[in-house]
Amino acid sequence: MSDPVFEKIALIGIGLIGSSLARVIRREGLARHIAISTRSAPTLARAEELGLGDSYSTDAKVAVKDADLIIVSVPVGSSGVVAADIASALKPGAILTDVGSTKASVIAQMLPYVPAGVHFIPGHPLAGTEKSGPDAGFAELFENRWCIFTPLPDTDPVALEKLSEFWRRCGSNIDTMDPEHHDMTLAIVSHLPHIIAYNIVGTADDLESVTKSEVIKYSASGFRDFTRLAASDPTMWRDVCLHNKDAILEMLSRFSEDLASLQRAIRWGDGDKLFEMFTRTRAIRRSIIDAGQEVDVPNFGREAIEHPVKS
Amino acid sequence: MSDPVFEKIALIGIGLIGSSLARVIRREGLARHIAISTRSAPTLARAEELGLGDSYSTDAKVAVKDADLIIVSVPVGSSGVVAADIASALKPGAILTDVGSTKASVIAQMLPYVPAGVHFIPGHPLAGTEKSGPDAGFAELFENRWCIFTPLPDTDPVALEKLSEFWRRCGSNIDTMDPEHHDMTLAIVSHLPHIIAYNIVGTADDLESVTKSEVIKYSASGFRDFTRLAASDPTMWRDVCLHNKDAILEMLSRFSEDLASLQRAIRWGDGDKLFEMFTRTRAIRRSIIDAGQEVDVPNFGREAIEHPVKS
Repeated sequence: MSDPVFEKIALIGIGLIGSSLARVIRREGLARHIAISTRSAPTLARAEELGLGDSYSTDAKVAVKDADLIIVSVPVGSSGVVAADIASALKPGAILTDVGSTKASVIAQMLPYVPAGVHFIPGHPLAGTEKSGPDAGFAELFENRWCIFTPLPDTDPVALEKLSEFWRRCGSNIDTMDPEHHDMTLAIVSHLPHIIAYNIVGTADDLESVTKSEVIKYSASGFRDFTRLAASDPTMWRDVCLHNKDAILEMLSRFSEDLASLQRAIRWGDGDKLFEMFTRTRAIRRSIIDAGQEVDVPNFGREAIEHPVKS
Repeated sequence: MSDPVFEKIALIGIGLIGSSLARVIRREGLARHIAISTRSAPTLARAEELGLGDSYSTDAKVAVKDADLIIVSVPVGSSGVVAADIASALKPGAILTDVGSTKASVIAQMLPYVPAGVHFIPGHPLAGTEKSGPDAGFAELFENRWCIFTPLPDTDPVALEKLSEFWRRCGSNIDTMDPEHHDMTLAIVSHLPHIIAYNIVGTADDLESVTKSEVIKYSASGFRDFTRLAASDPTMWRDVCLHNKDAILEMLSRFSEDLASLQRAIRWGDGDKLFEMFTRTRAIRRSIIDAGQEVDVPNFGREAIEHPVKS
């Protein structure tokens, strides 16, 4: 094991992302001290039971004292409140980062509170599962996933490199882009898919002609794929919708336009158009598998779990 | 191994479903003779290379001669052509079934050709993956999945029980319902999810503000879940859309209505409504897992494949 990247890391928020960070920091020896803070006393107690850190406090100011790296892992709508709370306790020279799914809004919320001498580098590890809470985290979560930074114009390159080293040692690949492009990109690769998944599960839940027990029984024929994203943390996704509104509305409007066109092809029995629409999409999945961002087995690998020994 | 259910089974079509049937029939000893037919000579040659059957012919009439069970596994739009082709060669007393994803249309296409004395029992095993062709099949495909029959008013109960026994020995659970209810149910649990998945992948493919390589790189944040369904066989799905039009249009219109309402909540910043919409959907996934129709691990079990040994 090589040297720690930081002496003390403070994790504000200890859900799926925060607790995965705690685990990988420990496993890789990335800090000598892990300070954990969350506002919820029961969640903090659970983190302590799991032995995720070296010190614990419901007061974020206590956790960030003397910390060299502070990682804020809270729903994006709470970013401003956290920044206001910890600002006065931040050590000069410390790096302050976050993991939020929207970047322009997080910058607008946090930047006004960041004291001179503290390096604020907004970040977003593109990793997660549909589970939440400190029990859901695991050290491998960031392996071979992308971590996107949206540095500010005056970001110190030395601090940026140090934070990049940290994330590389968590297993991630690093990209940088401007906040607006991040928010537009994530609107299509993450926010729209989650919103569509929530919506279709809601539509099915409301039907009267097909019972809920039928939807559940027969879900393996396609529907169950959507229920994973639709089982994600509602607070997190409410905040994403409220804080990346413009980009999401743009993607929703494109999606609905395309769906209207597809619906028209179905209504008028345009088989050639349907075939063309259903053909070009196969290549994208192949590219995702080739890029190492998806497993190359049927049904996402569920088969391997359902049928461990195959004939 | 118990006795075969049938002396000779003819499989018309040897794609994912047909070739999975061939494998499970062999493994479980469900027939003494498996006759395979498909119109495509290269596909038939591949089936023979894989040793899936006992006899092979591009002429379906040859395969169905003396068969006690004939299973038609072709895109639903080809059902009528197959029925017209084989009708004169069917043995009196034989059971003729299919595996099509739409039932009212298949019945309308096939029934006029079924000779007196042949038991026509429309069926639909709710099983599949995004792969297609004879190499994609596997014997476990039907295990713990539902097979739905939509028997006709004059269906012989003895023949229905014999076909049910066959599917149970393939690992399936049996349900029966009327064709219209089947088509409405499948429209929500299978057809709408596939159409939505094809559509969102198409929308992403068309963007100019976000590049295709970005969509691929960052797909693990949600998008990749949709690419699996969107990688399904385009011919099969074109035919499903053309042959279950009314039910699909009904579900699409409900989905779009709900999406418009969700979009409005985003535009007007209605956090309470978003939170409520995103909360009720979690319970459905839990029920699907409890019903044994989904694996109870994060990310559909991809983690187990990506990180075989966890800390």
